[in-house]
Amino acid sequence: MFTPRAIGLVRRPYTETTEIPKGLGAKHDVDGVLEIFPEFEVGLTDIEGFSHLFVLWVFDRAQGFELIGMPPFDDRPHGVFATRSPRRPNPIGLTVVELLRREGRLLHVRGIDMLDQTSVLDIKPYLSGIPSESLRRGWLAEAEARTRRQPSS
Amino acid sequence: MFTPRAIGLVRRPYTETTEIPKGLGAKHDVDGVLEIFPEFEVGLTDIEGFSHLFVLWVFDRAQGFELIGMPPFDDRPHGVFATRSPRRPNPIGLTVVELLRREGRLLHVRGIDMLDQTSVLDIKPYLSGIPSESLRRGWLAEAEARTRRQPSS
Repeated sequence: MFTPRAIGLVRRPYTETTEIPKGLGAKHDVDGVLEIFPEFEVGLTDIEGFSHLFVLWVFDRAQGFELIGMPPFDDRPHGVFATRSPRRPNPIGLTVVELLRREGRLLHVRGIDMLDQTSVLDIKPYLSGIPSESLRRGWLAEAEARTRRQPSS
Repeated sequence: MFTPRAIGLVRRPYTETTEIPKGLGAKHDVDGVLEIFPEFEVGLTDIEGFSHLFVLWVFDRAQGFELIGMPPFDDRPHGVFATRSPRRPNPIGLTVVELLRREGRLLHVRGIDMLDQTSVLDIKPYLSGIPSESLRRGWLAEAEARTRRQPSS
């Protein structure tokens, strides 16, 4: 196995986990910056041609993991691999961001849902998506349907 | 930082890197199995409701990294973060697979492009994609266009 190392840090307005929009219908279109460390800047060559990027990052404020847990926006427990829980065997987060512009080793992006100062592990170009009509979203779609039937008063 | 651990292994027909379809237009719709280790099986609860999954895995046969490299299907070098090169600062691979069925701790999937015996780090539900009409694909689209203009004889 390898030893993870940060290639950069997330810079964003939110600083507390409670401030991050969560749950069904949460909007994650927050702008922020991925600040890549100088020694990795040359690895960004040609990245500005891509509109969207995968960002792999570390849930560095999560402690341990649990294989079954209750998501914040459902009343039923689910397996960790069927959720985006931070408490995972390997605490790696994955976010798709839109690349707004590059300024040297700063990537200005839209759509970040990480905390400020989160360690970035990797960036990959987003090449294609699965069309929404081909997707099934399991318990999440069911939870959304229940929410629509029983709006919180 | 955390210490990566395998949650399972990839089982697939291909065993040599040279056998994996690469390059422009390569088809990755190979069926295979993600064999999750018994101690993590309960984390798969409810995963069968999702049609597509993100799989994070380790380029465990890659040595070191290079920040600029030549992809196999282009004649120009690009930064590692603008490619899917295995030689990355953190050698983590990312693949979207279609979940065909679950048999206990075996996930039968379509679309794997990893080698047999590759260590799996994480599985996450695929919830939504970026519509293709919103995507720009930089040097890759340019390389594809060059290939179309100059078909190999």
